[in-house]
Amino acid sequence: MKRARVLYEGETYDATDVDGDKIQLSDGRVLEETEVTWLPPLEVGTIFVLALNYADHAKEIAFKKAPDAPVVFLKGPGSLTGHRRTTRRPAGVAYMHYECELAVVIGQRCKHVPKERAYEVIGGYTVANDYAIRDYLENYYRPNLRVKSRDAGTPIGPWLVDAADVPDPMNLRLRSWVNGKPTQDGNTRDMVFDIPTLIAYLSSFMTLNPGDVILTGTPDGVSDAAVGDEIITEVEGIGRLINTIVGDDVPA
Amino acid sequence: MKRARVLYEGETYDATDVDGDKIQLSDGRVLEETEVTWLPPLEVGTIFVLALNYADHAKEIAFKKAPDAPVVFLKGPGSLTGHRRTTRRPAGVAYMHYECELAVVIGQRCKHVPKERAYEVIGGYTVANDYAIRDYLENYYRPNLRVKSRDAGTPIGPWLVDAADVPDPMNLRLRSWVNGKPTQDGNTRDMVFDIPTLIAYLSSFMTLNPGDVILTGTPDGVSDAAVGDEIITEVEGIGRLINTIVGDDVPA
Repeated sequence: MKRARVLYEGETYDATDVDGDKIQLSDGRVLEETEVTWLPPLEVGTIFVLALNYADHAKEIAFKKAPDAPVVFLKGPGSLTGHRRTTRRPAGVAYMHYECELAVVIGQRCKHVPKERAYEVIGGYTVANDYAIRDYLENYYRPNLRVKSRDAGTPIGPWLVDAADVPDPMNLRLRSWVNGKPTQDGNTRDMVFDIPTLIAYLSSFMTLNPGDVILTGTPDGVSDAAVGDEIITEVEGIGRLINTIVGDDVPA
Repeated sequence: MKRARVLYEGETYDATDVDGDKIQLSDGRVLEETEVTWLPPLEVGTIFVLALNYADHAKEIAFKKAPDAPVVFLKGPGSLTGHRRTTRRPAGVAYMHYECELAVVIGQRCKHVPKERAYEVIGGYTVANDYAIRDYLENYYRPNLRVKSRDAGTPIGPWLVDAADVPDPMNLRLRSWVNGKPTQDGNTRDMVFDIPTLIAYLSSFMTLNPGDVILTGTPDGVSDAAVGDEIITEVEGIGRLINTIVGDDVPA
Protein backbone atom coordinates (compact mmCIF):
# COMPACT_ATOMS: atom_id res chain seq x y z
CA MET A 1 0.00 0.00 0.00
CA LYS A 2 1.21 3.49 -0.95
CA ARG A 3 -0.15 6.51 0.84
CA ALA A 4 0.23 10.24 0.30
CA ARG A 5 -1.08 13.46 1.81
CA VAL A 6 -2.11 16.24 -0.55
CA LEU A 7 -3.82 19.60 -0.60
CA TYR A 8 -6.65 20.00 -3.09
CA GLU A 9 -9.10 22.90 -3.31
CA GLY A 10 -7.90 24.12 0.09
CA GLU A 11 -8.42 20.84 1.96
CA THR A 12 -5.90 18.20 3.12
CA TYR A 13 -6.60 14.63 1.95
CA ASP A 14 -5.07 11.23 2.38
CA ALA A 15 -4.54 9.71 -1.04
CA THR A 16 -3.50 6.46 -2.69
CA ASP A 17 -2.02 5.71 -6.10
CA VAL A 18 -3.90 4.53 -9.17
CA ASP A 19 -2.02 2.82 -12.00
CA GLY A 20 1.25 4.49 -11.04
CA ASP A 21 0.52 7.96 -12.40
CA LYS A 22 -2.82 9.10 -10.98
CA ILE A 23 -3.90 9.57 -7.40
CA GLN A 24 -7.15 8.87 -5.61
CA LEU A 25 -8.29 11.13 -2.78
CA SER A 26 -9.88 9.61 0.32
CA ASP A 27 -13.29 10.80 -0.99
CA GLY A 28 -12.88 8.69 -4.14
CA ARG A 29 -11.98 11.37 -6.70
CA VAL A 30 -9.17 10.42 -9.08
CA LEU A 31 -6.79 13.21 -10.15
CA GLU A 32 -3.61 13.73 -12.12
CA GLU A 33 -0.59 14.04 -9.82
CA THR A 34 0.00 17.58 -11.09
CA GLU A 35 -3.48 18.72 -10.01
CA VAL A 36 -2.74 18.55 -6.29
CA THR A 37 -0.21 20.12 -3.93
CA TRP A 38 1.84 17.32 -2.40
CA LEU A 39 2.63 17.35 1.32
CA PRO A 40 5.12 15.13 3.14
CA PRO A 41 3.37 11.72 3.12
CA LEU A 42 3.03 11.50 6.91
CA GLU A 43 3.01 13.64 10.05
CA VAL A 44 6.69 13.46 10.82
CA GLY A 45 8.13 13.32 14.36
CA THR A 46 11.86 13.48 14.98
CA ILE A 47 13.95 13.57 11.78
CA PHE A 48 17.29 11.73 12.02
CA VAL A 49 19.84 12.24 9.28
CA LEU A 50 22.90 10.15 8.57
CA ALA A 51 26.04 11.86 7.36
CA LEU A 52 28.59 9.92 5.36
CA ASN A 53 26.73 6.60 5.38
CA TYR A 54 27.97 5.51 1.93
CA ALA A 55 31.73 5.09 1.70
CA ASP A 56 31.92 6.29 -1.92
CA HIS A 57 30.15 9.54 -1.03
CA ALA A 58 32.33 10.08 2.06
CA LYS A 59 35.34 9.79 -0.24
CA GLU A 60 33.77 12.08 -2.84
CA ILE A 61 33.44 14.94 -0.36
CA ALA A 62 37.04 14.50 0.72
CA PHE A 63 36.86 12.28 3.78
CA LYS A 64 39.65 9.72 3.64
CA LYS A 65 37.46 7.06 5.21
CA ALA A 66 33.93 6.55 6.46
CA PRO A 67 33.31 7.13 10.21
CA ASP A 68 33.53 4.22 12.70
CA ALA A 69 30.18 4.96 14.35
CA PRO A 70 27.01 6.38 12.77
CA VAL A 71 27.19 10.18 12.44
CA VAL A 72 23.62 11.29 13.03
CA PHE A 73 22.07 14.70 13.49
CA LEU A 74 18.54 16.05 13.70
CA LYS A 75 16.62 18.23 11.29
CA GLY A 76 13.88 20.69 12.19
CA PRO A 77 10.27 19.94 11.11
CA GLY A 78 10.08 23.08 8.92
CA SER A 79 12.79 21.65 6.67
CA LEU A 80 10.36 19.22 5.02
CA THR A 81 8.39 19.88 1.86
CA GLY A 82 6.47 17.70 -0.59
CA HIS A 83 6.80 16.18 -4.06
CA ARG A 84 6.77 18.65 -6.99
CA ARG A 85 7.42 21.60 -4.69
CA THR A 86 10.29 24.07 -4.85
CA THR A 87 13.42 24.47 -2.73
CA ARG A 88 15.37 27.71 -2.52
CA ARG A 89 18.99 28.11 -3.33
CA PRO A 90 20.43 30.71 -0.93
CA ALA A 91 22.01 33.70 -2.65
CA GLY A 92 25.79 33.64 -2.84
CA VAL A 93 26.50 30.00 -2.02
CA ALA A 94 28.80 27.78 -4.08
CA TYR A 95 27.56 24.27 -3.23
CA MET A 96 23.93 23.22 -3.01
CA HIS A 97 24.06 19.44 -3.25
CA TYR A 98 20.99 17.25 -3.80
CA GLU A 99 21.16 13.90 -2.00
CA CYS A 100 18.92 10.94 -2.90
CA GLU A 101 18.11 8.94 0.24
CA LEU A 102 15.95 6.08 1.44
CA ALA A 103 13.87 7.35 4.39
CA VAL A 104 12.88 4.77 7.01
CA VAL A 105 9.68 5.54 8.94
CA ILE A 106 9.32 4.16 12.46
CA GLY A 107 5.99 2.44 13.11
CA GLN A 108 5.97 1.86 16.85
CA ARG A 109 7.32 3.30 20.08
CA CYS A 110 10.47 1.42 20.99
CA LYS A 111 13.75 1.49 22.90
CA HIS A 112 16.71 -0.91 23.08
CA VAL A 113 15.75 -2.70 19.87
CA PRO A 114 18.23 -5.46 19.01
CA LYS A 115 19.41 -5.56 15.39
CA GLU A 116 17.63 -8.84 14.73
CA ARG A 117 14.26 -7.29 15.63
CA ALA A 118 14.80 -3.91 13.97
CA TYR A 119 12.56 -4.56 10.98
CA GLU A 120 9.62 -5.16 13.35
CA VAL A 121 9.56 -1.49 14.38
CA ILE A 122 9.58 -0.09 10.83
CA GLY A 123 6.23 1.19 9.52
CA GLY A 124 7.28 2.07 6.00
CA TYR A 125 9.63 3.82 3.61
CA THR A 126 9.70 6.94 1.51
CA VAL A 127 12.20 8.95 -0.56
CA ALA A 128 14.01 12.09 0.59
CA ASN A 129 16.13 14.62 -1.21
CA ASP A 130 18.33 15.89 1.60
CA TYR A 131 19.74 19.10 0.11
CA ALA A 132 22.96 20.33 1.75
CA ILE A 133 24.36 23.84 1.53
CA ARG A 134 27.88 22.62 1.90
CA ASP A 135 29.45 26.08 2.14
CA TYR A 136 28.28 26.33 5.76
CA LEU A 137 29.76 23.03 6.89
CA GLU A 138 33.42 23.68 6.31
CA ASN A 139 34.74 24.58 9.70
CA TYR A 140 36.06 22.73 12.69
CA TYR A 141 32.79 22.66 14.61
CA ARG A 142 30.94 21.06 11.69
CA PRO A 143 27.66 22.78 12.51
CA ASN A 144 24.96 21.47 10.20
CA LEU A 145 21.88 23.53 11.04
CA ARG A 146 22.33 26.07 8.24
CA VAL A 147 23.42 23.23 5.96
CA LYS A 148 20.47 20.91 6.50
CA SER A 149 17.58 22.55 8.42
CA ARG A 150 16.59 25.38 6.09
CA ASP A 151 12.87 25.92 5.46
CA ALA A 152 11.67 23.53 2.73
CA GLY A 153 15.20 22.22 2.17
CA THR A 154 14.16 18.55 2.31
CA PRO A 155 11.59 17.30 -0.19
CA ILE A 156 10.12 13.98 0.98
CA GLY A 157 7.66 11.62 -0.69
CA PRO A 158 5.67 11.23 -2.86
CA TRP A 159 4.52 8.03 -1.16
CA LEU A 160 4.79 6.31 2.17
CA VAL A 161 5.12 2.64 1.21
CA ASP A 162 4.16 0.04 3.81
CA ALA A 163 7.08 -1.95 5.17
CA ALA A 164 5.27 -5.18 4.25
CA ASP A 165 5.55 -4.20 0.57
CA VAL A 166 9.33 -3.80 0.68
CA PRO A 167 10.84 -7.26 1.02
CA ASP A 168 14.50 -6.22 0.90
CA PRO A 169 15.13 -2.57 1.81
CA MET A 170 18.89 -3.27 1.87
CA ASN A 171 18.88 -3.93 -1.87
CA LEU A 172 17.23 -0.94 -3.55
CA ARG A 173 18.68 1.12 -6.36
CA LEU A 174 18.93 4.88 -5.66
CA ARG A 175 19.14 7.27 -8.61
CA SER A 176 19.14 11.00 -9.26
CA TRP A 177 18.72 13.06 -12.41
CA VAL A 178 19.46 16.74 -12.96
CA ASN A 179 17.38 18.12 -15.84
CA GLY A 180 17.05 14.58 -17.13
CA LYS A 181 20.75 13.74 -16.95
CA PRO A 182 21.57 10.81 -14.65
CA THR A 183 23.94 11.69 -11.78
CA GLN A 184 23.60 9.40 -8.76
CA ASP A 185 23.28 5.63 -9.18
CA GLY A 186 23.82 3.64 -6.00
CA ASN A 187 22.27 0.86 -3.98
CA THR A 188 21.19 0.69 -0.33
CA ARG A 189 23.35 -2.42 0.05
CA ASP A 190 26.36 -0.07 0.14
CA MET A 191 25.36 1.69 3.36
CA VAL A 192 28.23 1.78 5.86
CA PHE A 193 25.76 1.18 8.73
CA ASP A 194 22.74 -0.80 7.59
CA ILE A 195 19.15 -0.16 8.67
CA PRO A 196 19.11 -2.68 11.57
CA THR A 197 22.38 -1.22 12.89
CA LEU A 198 20.98 2.32 12.74
CA ILE A 199 17.79 1.39 14.61
CA ALA A 200 19.72 -0.55 17.25
CA TYR A 201 22.14 2.38 17.66
CA LEU A 202 19.54 5.14 17.95
CA SER A 203 17.22 3.16 20.22
CA SER A 204 20.11 2.34 22.55
CA PHE A 205 19.92 5.84 24.00
CA MET A 206 16.69 7.41 22.70
CA THR A 207 13.09 6.27 22.54
CA LEU A 208 11.89 6.11 18.94
CA ASN A 209 8.26 6.97 18.20
CA PRO A 210 5.79 6.33 15.35
CA GLY A 211 6.40 8.89 12.62
CA ASP A 212 10.08 9.36 13.42
CA VAL A 213 12.04 9.24 10.18
CA ILE A 214 15.63 8.16 9.52
CA LEU A 215 17.27 9.54 6.36
CA THR A 216 19.85 6.87 5.72
CA GLY A 217 22.48 8.75 3.71
CA THR A 218 23.36 9.20 0.05
CA PRO A 219 25.72 7.47 -2.40
CA ASP A 220 28.19 9.39 -4.58
CA GLY A 221 27.25 11.51 -7.58
CA VAL A 222 26.22 14.74 -5.88
CA SER A 223 26.79 18.02 -7.72
CA ASP A 224 25.79 21.63 -7.48
CA ALA A 225 22.11 22.40 -8.17
CA ALA A 226 21.35 25.69 -9.91
CA VAL A 227 18.26 27.88 -9.92
CA GLY A 228 15.83 26.44 -12.44
CA ASP A 229 17.14 22.86 -12.23
CA GLU A 230 14.67 20.01 -11.96
CA ILE A 231 16.07 17.35 -9.65
CA ILE A 232 14.61 13.86 -9.53
CA THR A 233 15.54 11.45 -6.76
CA GLU A 234 14.24 7.90 -7.01
CA VAL A 235 14.43 4.84 -4.80
CA GLU A 236 13.54 1.58 -6.52
CA GLY A 237 10.03 0.45 -5.59
CA ILE A 238 9.51 3.37 -3.21
CA GLY A 239 9.01 6.43 -5.37
CA ARG A 240 10.25 9.10 -7.72
CA LEU A 241 10.46 12.52 -6.08
CA ILE A 242 10.58 15.66 -8.25
CA ASN A 243 11.80 19.04 -7.01
CA THR A 244 12.72 22.34 -8.67
CA ILE A 245 15.28 24.85 -7.44
CA VAL A 246 14.21 28.49 -7.16
CA GLY A 247 16.08 31.61 -6.13
CA ASP A 248 16.14 32.98 -2.62
CA ASP A 249 14.13 35.99 -3.77
CA VAL A 250 11.01 33.99 -4.71
CA PRO A 251 8.21 34.51 -2.16
CA ALA A 252 7.32 31.47 -0.04
CA MET B 1 3.82 35.58 35.76
CA LYS B 2 5.39 32.16 36.32
CA ARG B 3 3.76 29.08 34.92
CA ALA B 4 4.44 25.38 35.33
CA ARG B 5 2.94 22.10 34.18
CA VAL B 6 2.66 19.28 36.71
CA LEU B 7 1.18 15.83 37.17
CA TYR B 8 -0.90 15.33 40.30
CA GLU B 9 -3.09 12.33 41.11
CA GLY B 10 -2.75 11.14 37.52
CA GLU B 11 -3.87 14.39 35.86
CA THR B 12 -1.84 17.12 34.13
CA TYR B 13 -2.38 20.66 35.47
CA ASP B 14 -1.17 24.13 34.65
CA ALA B 15 0.13 25.70 37.86
CA THR B 16 1.42 29.01 39.19
CA ASP B 17 3.70 29.82 42.10
CA VAL B 18 2.59 30.94 45.56
CA ASP B 19 5.04 32.74 47.86
CA GLY B 20 8.04 31.23 46.09
CA ASP B 21 7.84 27.74 47.56
CA LYS B 22 4.31 26.44 47.03
CA ILE B 23 2.38 25.88 43.83
CA GLN B 24 -1.25 26.43 42.94
CA LEU B 25 -2.97 24.11 40.48
CA SER B 26 -5.37 25.54 37.90
CA ASP B 27 -8.27 24.20 40.02
CA GLY B 28 -7.16 26.34 42.98
CA ARG B 29 -5.51 23.72 45.20
CA VAL B 30 -2.24 24.81 46.81
CA LEU B 31 0.46 22.14 47.21
CA GLU B 32 4.07 21.77 48.28
CA GLU B 33 6.39 21.58 45.30
CA THR B 34 7.45 18.09 46.36
CA GLU B 35 3.87 16.79 46.19
CA VAL B 36 3.64 16.96 42.40
CA THR B 37 5.55 15.51 39.47
CA TRP B 38 7.00 18.39 37.48
CA LEU B 39 6.83 18.38 33.69
CA PRO B 40 8.65 20.69 31.30
CA PRO B 41 6.81 24.03 31.78
CA LEU B 42 5.50 24.19 28.21
CA GLU B 43 4.78 22.03 25.17
CA VAL B 44 8.14 22.38 23.48
CA GLY B 45 8.62 22.56 19.70
CA THR B 46 12.06 22.58 18.14
CA ILE B 47 14.90 22.61 20.68
CA PHE B 48 17.97 24.59 19.60
CA VAL B 49 21.16 24.21 21.60
CA LEU B 50 24.20 26.46 21.53
CA ALA B 51 27.62 24.90 21.88
CA LEU B 52 30.51 26.97 23.18
CA ASN B 53 28.56 30.20 23.64
CA TYR B 54 30.59 31.37 26.67
CA ALA B 55 34.26 31.96 25.93
CA ASP B 56 35.44 30.79 29.39
CA HIS B 57 33.64 27.46 28.95
CA ALA B 58 34.99 27.00 25.41
CA LYS B 59 38.46 27.44 26.87
CA GLU B 60 37.71 25.09 29.78
CA ILE B 61 36.89 22.22 27.43
CA ALA B 62 40.07 22.82 25.48
CA PHE B 63 39.01 25.00 22.57
CA LYS B 64 41.60 27.68 22.01
CA LYS B 65 39.00 30.22 21.06
CA ALA B 66 35.23 30.57 20.77
CA PRO B 67 33.70 29.96 17.31
CA ASP B 68 33.13 32.90 14.95
CA ALA B 69 29.52 31.96 14.10
CA PRO B 70 26.92 30.39 16.41
CA VAL B 71 27.37 26.61 16.68
CA VAL B 72 23.81 25.33 17.01
CA PHE B 73 22.36 21.85 16.95
CA LEU B 74 18.95 20.33 17.63
CA LYS B 75 17.82 18.08 20.45
CA GLY B 76 15.05 15.48 20.27
CA PRO B 77 11.82 16.08 22.24
CA GLY B 78 12.34 12.97 24.40
CA SER B 79 15.46 14.52 25.87
CA LEU B 80 13.42 16.84 28.11
CA THR B 81 12.37 16.10 31.67
CA GLY B 82 11.03 18.20 34.55
CA HIS B 83 12.19 19.77 37.82
CA ARG B 84 13.00 17.31 40.66
CA ARG B 85 13.17 14.39 38.25
CA THR B 86 16.10 12.07 37.64
CA THR B 87 18.59 11.78 34.80
CA ARG B 88 20.59 8.63 34.07
CA ARG B 89 24.31 8.39 33.93
CA PRO B 90 25.21 5.86 31.22
CA ALA B 91 27.33 2.95 32.46
CA GLY B 92 31.01 3.20 31.68
CA VAL B 93 31.32 6.86 30.71
CA ALA B 94 33.96 9.19 32.14
CA TYR B 95 32.39 12.64 31.66
CA MET B 96 28.77 13.50 32.37
CA HIS B 97 28.79 17.29 32.60
CA TYR B 98 25.85 19.34 33.94
CA GLU B 99 25.41 22.70 32.18
CA CYS B 100 23.33 25.55 33.63
CA GLU B 101 21.65 27.50 30.81
CA LEU B 102 19.13 30.24 30.22
CA ALA B 103 16.43 28.87 27.90
CA VAL B 104 14.69 31.38 25.62
CA VAL B 105 11.13 30.46 24.57
CA ILE B 106 9.83 31.80 21.26
CA GLY B 107 6.36 33.37 21.52
CA GLN B 108 5.35 33.90 17.90
CA ARG B 109 5.90 32.51 14.43
CA CYS B 110 8.63 34.53 12.75
CA LYS B 111 11.31 34.60 10.07
CA HIS B 112 14.00 37.14 9.16
CA VAL B 113 13.82 38.90 12.51
CA PRO B 114 16.30 41.79 12.73
CA LYS B 115 18.37 41.96 15.93
CA GLU B 116 16.68 45.15 17.05
CA ARG B 117 13.25 43.45 17.02
CA ALA B 118 14.36 40.10 18.46
CA TYR B 119 12.93 40.65 21.94
CA GLU B 120 9.46 41.11 20.41
CA VAL B 121 9.30 37.43 19.39
CA ILE B 122 10.29 36.05 22.82
CA GLY B 123 7.46 34.64 24.94
CA GLY B 124 9.42 33.83 28.07
CA TYR B 125 12.36 32.19 29.76
CA THR B 126 13.11 29.09 31.75
CA VAL B 127 16.16 27.22 33.09
CA ALA B 128 17.76 24.16 31.51
CA ASN B 129 20.39 21.72 32.68
CA ASP B 130 21.84 20.56 29.39
CA TYR B 131 23.74 17.42 30.45
CA ALA B 132 26.48 16.34 28.04
CA ILE B 133 28.05 12.90 27.88
CA ARG B 134 31.31 14.29 26.65
CA ASP B 135 32.91 10.89 25.97
CA TYR B 136 30.88 10.56 22.79
CA LEU B 137 31.88 13.92 21.33
CA GLU B 138 35.59 13.40 20.96
CA ASN B 139 36.03 12.58 17.32
CA TYR B 140 36.45 14.45 14.11
CA TYR B 141 32.80 14.37 13.09
CA ARG B 142 31.68 15.91 16.40
CA PRO B 143 28.40 14.02 16.43
CA ASN B 144 26.30 15.25 19.35
CA LEU B 145 23.22 13.04 19.30
CA ARG B 146 24.48 10.53 21.89
CA VAL B 147 25.99 13.44 23.83
CA LYS B 148 22.89 15.60 24.07
CA SER B 149 19.69 13.83 22.96
CA ARG B 150 19.45 10.98 25.45
CA ASP B 151 16.05 10.26 27.00
CA ALA B 152 15.47 12.62 29.97
CA GLY B 153 18.96 14.08 29.61
CA THR B 154 17.77 17.70 29.75
CA PRO B 155 15.85 18.84 32.84
CA ILE B 156 13.97 22.08 32.11
CA GLY B 157 11.92 24.34 34.38
CA PRO B 158 10.54 24.65 36.98
CA TRP B 159 8.84 27.78 35.65
CA LEU B 160 8.17 29.50 32.38
CA VAL B 161 8.58 33.18 33.25
CA ASP B 162 6.85 35.73 30.99
CA ALA B 163 9.25 37.83 28.94
CA ALA B 164 7.57 40.98 30.32
CA ASP B 165 8.84 40.05 33.79
CA VAL B 166 12.50 39.81 32.73
CA PRO B 167 13.70 43.35 32.04
CA ASP B 168 17.31 42.47 31.21
CA PRO B 169 17.85 38.85 30.13
CA MET B 170 21.43 39.71 29.11
CA ASN B 171 22.35 40.39 32.74
CA LEU B 172 21.31 37.34 34.75
CA ARG B 173 23.54 35.37 37.10
CA LEU B 174 23.78 31.62 36.33
CA ARG B 175 24.83 29.26 39.11
CA SER B 176 25.16 25.54 39.72
CA TRP B 177 25.68 23.48 42.86
CA VAL B 178 26.70 19.84 43.19
CA ASN B 179 25.49 18.38 46.50
CA GLY B 180 25.33 21.92 47.87
CA LYS B 181 28.83 22.91 46.74
CA PRO B 182 28.90 25.87 44.31
CA THR B 183 30.50 25.08 40.96
CA GLN B 184 29.27 27.33 38.11
CA ASP B 185 28.90 31.09 38.63
CA GLY B 186 28.54 33.08 35.43
CA ASN B 187 26.39 35.78 33.87
CA THR B 188 24.40 35.87 30.65
CA ARG B 189 26.24 39.08 29.74
CA ASP B 190 29.23 36.87 28.87
CA MET B 191 27.53 35.05 26.00
CA VAL B 192 29.65 35.08 22.84
CA PHE B 193 26.50 35.54 20.70
CA ASP B 194 23.78 37.40 22.59
CA ILE B 195 20.07 36.59 22.45
CA PRO B 196 19.17 39.08 19.68
CA THR B 197 22.06 37.76 17.55
CA LEU B 198 20.92 34.17 18.04
CA ILE B 199 17.31 34.93 17.05
CA ALA B 200 18.41 36.95 14.02
CA TYR B 201 20.77 34.13 12.98
CA LEU B 202 18.30 31.25 13.35
CA SER B 203 15.40 33.13 11.77
CA SER B 204 17.56 34.07 8.79
CA PHE B 205 17.17 30.53 7.40
CA MET B 206 14.45 28.82 9.47
CA THR B 207 10.96 29.80 10.55
CA LEU B 208 10.72 29.92 14.34
CA ASN B 209 7.45 28.90 15.99
CA PRO B 210 5.77 29.45 19.35
CA GLY B 211 7.17 26.93 21.84
CA ASP B 212 10.54 26.63 20.13
CA VAL B 213 13.27 26.86 22.76
CA ILE B 214 16.85 28.10 22.48
CA LEU B 215 19.31 26.81 25.09
CA THR B 216 21.84 29.62 25.08
CA GLY B 217 24.99 27.88 26.34
CA THR B 218 26.79 27.48 29.65
CA PRO B 219 29.62 29.31 31.44
CA ASP B 220 32.65 27.54 32.89
CA GLY B 221 32.61 25.40 36.04
CA VAL B 222 31.33 22.11 34.62
CA SER B 223 32.50 18.89 36.23
CA ASP B 224 31.64 15.22 36.22
CA ALA B 225 28.30 14.29 37.83
CA ALA B 226 28.16 10.97 39.70
CA VAL B 227 25.28 8.63 40.48
CA GLY B 228 23.51 9.98 43.56
CA ASP B 229 24.55 13.61 43.03
CA GLU B 230 21.96 16.34 43.43
CA ILE B 231 22.61 19.05 40.84
CA ILE B 232 21.00 22.49 41.15
CA THR B 233 21.08 24.90 38.24
CA GLU B 234 19.72 28.40 38.82
CA VAL B 235 19.20 31.45 36.66
CA GLU B 236 18.62 34.68 38.56
CA GLY B 237 14.95 35.64 38.55
CA ILE B 238 13.97 32.68 36.37
CA GLY B 239 14.18 29.61 38.57
CA ARG B 240 16.09 27.02 40.53
CA LEU B 241 16.05 23.60 38.86
CA ILE B 242 16.87 20.49 40.90
CA ASN B 243 17.89 17.15 39.39
CA THR B 244 19.35 13.90 40.72
CA ILE B 245 21.63 11.51 38.87
CA VAL B 246 20.71 7.83 38.85
CA GLY B 247 22.37 4.78 37.35
CA ASP B 248 21.61 3.40 33.94
CA ASP B 249 20.10 0.31 35.56
CA VAL B 250 17.22 2.16 37.28
CA PRO B 251 13.90 1.47 35.52
CA ALA B 252 12.35 4.50 33.75
